[in-house]
Amino acid sequence: MKAEIISTGTELLLGKTLNTSAFYLTGQLSGLGMEVVYHTTVGDNQARLLEALGQALTRSQIVFLTGGLGPTADDLTKEVVARVLGLDMDFNQDCMETIKHFYNEKLSLPPGSEKQAAFPKGAKILQNEQGTAPGAIIAKEEKYCVIMPGPPSEMKVMFDNHVLPELQNILKNDQERMYVRVLKVFGLGESELEQKISDIMAQKSPFITLLDKHTYMDLRVTIKTGNREKAQTILNNTEEVIRKRLGNNVFGVDDENHAQIVGNLLRKNKLSLATAESCTGGLLGGRMTAEAGSSDYYLGGAVSYANSAKEIILGVNSVSLFEHGAVSDTVAREMAVGVKKRLQADLGLSITGIAGPDGGTVEKPVGLVYIGLAHYEGVNIKKCQFVGSRESIRNMSVETALNMLRLYLLEGK
Amino acid sequence: MKAEIISTGTELLLGKTLNTSAFYLTGQLSGLGMEVVYHTTVGDNQARLLEALGQALTRSQIVFLTGGLGPTADDLTKEVVARVLGLDMDFNQDCMETIKHFYNEKLSLPPGSEKQAAFPKGAKILQNEQGTAPGAIIAKEEKYCVIMPGPPSEMKVMFDNHVLPELQNILKNDQERMYVRVLKVFGLGESELEQKISDIMAQKSPFITLLDKHTYMDLRVTIKTGNREKAQTILNNTEEVIRKRLGNNVFGVDDENHAQIVGNLLRKNKLSLATAESCTGGLLGGRMTAEAGSSDYYLGGAVSYANSAKEIILGVNSVSLFEHGAVSDTVAREMAVGVKKRLQADLGLSITGIAGPDGGTVEKPVGLVYIGLAHYEGVNIKKCQFVGSRESIRNMSVETALNMLRLYLLEGK
Repeated sequence: MKAEIISTGTELLLGKTLNTSAFYLTGQLSGLGMEVVYHTTVGDNQARLLEALGQALTRSQIVFLTGGLGPTADDLTKEVVARVLGLDMDFNQDCMETIKHFYNEKLSLPPGSEKQAAFPKGAKILQNEQGTAPGAIIAKEEKYCVIMPGPPSEMKVMFDNHVLPELQNILKNDQERMYVRVLKVFGLGESELEQKISDIMAQKSPFITLLDKHTYMDLRVTIKTGNREKAQTILNNTEEVIRKRLGNNVFGVDDENHAQIVGNLLRKNKLSLATAESCTGGLLGGRMTAEAGSSDYYLGGAVSYANSAKEIILGVNSVSLFEHGAVSDTVAREMAVGVKKRLQADLGLSITGIAGPDGGTVEKPVGLVYIGLAHYEGVNIKKCQFVGSRESIRNMSVETALNMLRLYLLEGK
Repeated sequence: MKAEIISTGTELLLGKTLNTSAFYLTGQLSGLGMEVVYHTTVGDNQARLLEALGQALTRSQIVFLTGGLGPTADDLTKEVVARVLGLDMDFNQDCMETIKHFYNEKLSLPPGSEKQAAFPKGAKILQNEQGTAPGAIIAKEEKYCVIMPGPPSEMKVMFDNHVLPELQNILKNDQERMYVRVLKVFGLGESELEQKISDIMAQKSPFITLLDKHTYMDLRVTIKTGNREKAQTILNNTEEVIRKRLGNNVFGVDDENHAQIVGNLLRKNKLSLATAESCTGGLLGGRMTAEAGSSDYYLGGAVSYANSAKEIILGVNSVSLFEHGAVSDTVAREMAVGVKKRLQADLGLSITGIAGPDGGTVEKPVGLVYIGLAHYEGVNIKKCQFVGSRESIRNMSVETALNMLRLYLLEGK
């Protein structure tokens, strides 16, 4: 089933707001096996929205519209849908009560609220648990329009709770779907990766594409078929073949992330971790605690940005700092050992480096980063030379530290 | 001048890649006073790209296309542009040499590289400093197509270095442009904000819109005029009027962020900061160190995720932890005081809370967060009750801590 997404909102066309709603929706729809063929973004402009929706409905069976459901005059998504489908607008009293209820608890009813309770005739109304604007699904002659609010937080909850069940009904009769599996690969560049699996990439089905995600690569396996079980078998087999070639360079699948994988390995091995960060300023700790339940394995650590912090909190030797500098093998080692010892952790992971853009020298250029991993048998040190912006150097440092820890947990070295 | 953006790439329609290129471009083009009227995203599919470009050129004077410049058969942006504009393809020997040069240094020339050196006849070729695929600008009968590579890192550098100077030439003759200023507001909800400036919002020009950015609000002032100086005067006056109404709730303008503003205030006041984070796990430190030069004012701190870390690194009293719990006024206070003292900082900022989704109780529900700010005159404590996902609670905690520190630095309380 071909689907399109139309995002409305002038803010999206001023470059001040990233269109995360379209991104989220696309992922969800692809996961359901729908083929998303177009995204269109238009401002709050009736003529342009009319044109965009008219075109979308000639090409695709289902169109998802986000935004333009507010109480003001330039919110006109529902009106445009009614016009394109040749339907009248209907006032819905139940909806009005819900909106009144929402405001009663907080403040007085703003002008234009009645507008939010009007829908194209025959619409199935979708509750908005996060805000006032309800959504709707309108079906006409085998075409569907799904209307949802613009703010991603409202849209996502509405999609998960109310749109998804309806879509599963609509999709029951559909024949061919697209199935996707993403393998996440660390430590191999695009061309190196391509060489290792060139024969698999040459196949027409399943179809393989590579995507540079900056700190890692996504290897995407896609297959289009009417048979769900067959799709799963092919995806499983392809994954197995690729994993044999790439080994532990594959760190995860689909939505998994590196910190989550590492966290699960720590939990499985009943090991605790402490971190000591200099140039990353807490980003590694932030990543390690992004998942609920991370207190099972993560104790905390130090953000030792200044040298004094390295000495005071981690017990790094002032002579080491003076003789080798903060960005050195020696200091990375003392940071990792220090934080492991201070917090009585099983493992200590440290990062010290020059994130730039200033502060580099000929001997220690911007992008030079040392990562230390203290364990019971000793300390592993990795010297890295990253290139790019301050942000990329910091992100690559965190990702490389996670990878070092993951490989240690998997391979014991 | 009306502009459109067409992003090509099947990956964008699988929900695995966020379209940051379109976002970046839109911001840049709006800044130049162009009116971006549509974004369209299409897969690597010739028929759909033909249709999208054909439509775009009937509506807009300039179309920016990203992606589809690679060596493989499904990369067909240049070919489609040539076809829509009725131009032949031309092989460019200079370009071929550059591509050869790029690969000579690294690896052998991959098949399809000749394709990357072919362009619609009369195209102005744009160098790609970050990769092999050059871009191009093609002009025909007062319409322009600007072709750039898909990877954001390549596209951005090409845009800044090569497209921007060309655009400035093209725009010289344009009459009306759109000028935008964004005021960033913390601590006021949408309706509260609307009430405070309803009379200003009722004006037709400058045009005001509000956007909920989850942790803060963007208040966007837009004006369309042919006179750059007049635009600046109006934007300045409007900003002044709004600032008078909202006071220190306005924390920044345009691209400024909260951590940067706070950092500049610390630097100006010659004050140093140390942080102690529990539920945010290092995110506050990560934010404070995102800007180069943050070592001028940020010393570091502790990620005291486990109670043991709070005791060992920060000297939080085990009795306080036992009697009041880690998420309490008392522990927030001891964390802030502890980190200030340990690192001999002028200010200590602490966060302790329950980010959820689990771990809440009736007395201490998910979203309960205490923020402490230790200064020379004492300790300020703020008790917050946030709602939302683990991610939003953590983000709101960081933002609220930054705001507390900013207000202290501005108002001394």
